Amino acid sequence: MNQKQLAGEKAADYIEDGMTVGLGTGSTVFYTIQKVGEAVKNGLRIKGVSTSASTTKLAQSLGIPLVSIDDVDKIDLTIDGADEVDPELNGIKGGGGALLFEKVVANASAKVIWVVDPAKKVQTLGKFPLPVEVIPFGAQRLFRYFEKQSLSPVIRNKENAPYVTDSGHYIIDLHLEEIREPGQLATWLDSLTGVVEHGLFLNGADLIVVGGTNGPEIIEKK
Amino acid sequence: MNQKQLAGEKAADYIEDGMTVGLGTGSTVFYTIQKVGEAVKNGLRIKGVSTSASTTKLAQSLGIPLVSIDDVDKIDLTIDGADEVDPELNGIKGGGGALLFEKVVANASAKVIWVVDPAKKVQTLGKFPLPVEVIPFGAQRLFRYFEKQSLSPVIRNKENAPYVTDSGHYIIDLHLEEIREPGQLATWLDSLTGVVEHGLFLNGADLIVVGGTNGPEIIEKK
Repeated sequence: MNQKQLAGEKAADYIEDGMTVGLGTGSTVFYTIQKVGEAVKNGLRIKGVSTSASTTKLAQSLGIPLVSIDDVDKIDLTIDGADEVDPELNGIKGGGGALLFEKVVANASAKVIWVVDPAKKVQTLGKFPLPVEVIPFGAQRLFRYFEKQSLSPVIRNKENAPYVTDSGHYIIDLHLEEIREPGQLATWLDSLTGVVEHGLFLNGADLIVVGGTNGPEIIEKK
Repeated sequence: MNQKQLAGEKAADYIEDGMTVGLGTGSTVFYTIQKVGEAVKNGLRIKGVSTSASTTKLAQSLGIPLVSIDDVDKIDLTIDGADEVDPELNGIKGGGGALLFEKVVANASAKVIWVVDPAKKVQTLGKFPLPVEVIPFGAQRLFRYFEKQSLSPVIRNKENAPYVTDSGHYIIDLHLEEIREPGQLATWLDSLTGVVEHGLFLNGADLIVVGGTNGPEIIEKK
């Protein structure tokens, strides 16, 4: 069993009967969702809240009942992946392009678990490019502005055209190498017109499950 | 000539040959754009940058050459309307639903003129409902959150369904009556996940043209 699968399946243990569960997006949480699908077939009653079109498709294929984010008062637990996690459980997310819905669902959740392989654990965020979701109108201007600020932006492409998110937005990846002040950066990005959301999830998780050769490791927020 | 027309046409005087001009959206700037169309027919050479699908249509029908916001280095002058303006030339915009593109264009402009009728001049912003542009995913949750914060939200409708902006977003109008700290409110709204933009334009205009029974009044930023 690979490390992603180890971590992904372990996280499913935290799901209890009757819960409303946020279902993340990505290659590690894929295994969580598969495990949840098996449990549902064996009688587990949960309601899932999806964070992307691809997760909706996967959950539906496994018979997991889904509800809309707008129809739930709160989400008991969300299980999602992350592209980088630091010791304070701040993270960078959005490599898969679903950061906007993922952040909406995370903010609505009483508890958040991230499932990651060991390579995602870092001392300082920023080696992984920070995704910034922007509206298409004026995206080239924002790109040039980020360039002037020496933030090494790259407009994410797919098949020689800008990648389009589930909300119809573009993503600009900032190749920062090291983010010394994630809080300041988050506030500054929030203030920019045209920026819809960014991949900095500050204090993003309550607990992470890390795949490892000796079984999964659990790290709780200090 | 009505007051909107007076103000709208007067503002066109500020346009000079060779300029790149941001063209706002609404019932007052409509008269500016018509005047610009006449001037273009008489030889004025400008490039227009549109702020909405409706302004694009109007400008094209008048033969005004348009360029994309992404293809210009800077905009020399933008002429737009406003729903409320205070003595510091802060404003509320977005009654017509085009606030997002209008703010992108305004931020890219060396100079901004708002054309308004006298009823739009106020001492304190907030009598006009503040438009907040939000993503549809989780919009009902945001609505309930605004309700809990006593911000008297109303989801804008059109023909019994949510109004959809040119970017595919919804608008929640906050009926605040009085905004005592517009800067604080703007920062707080910027920080909310799911909020794309809001209608507070702080220090939004360099100059306003106010229609009046004794001719248009010009007020410059202090």
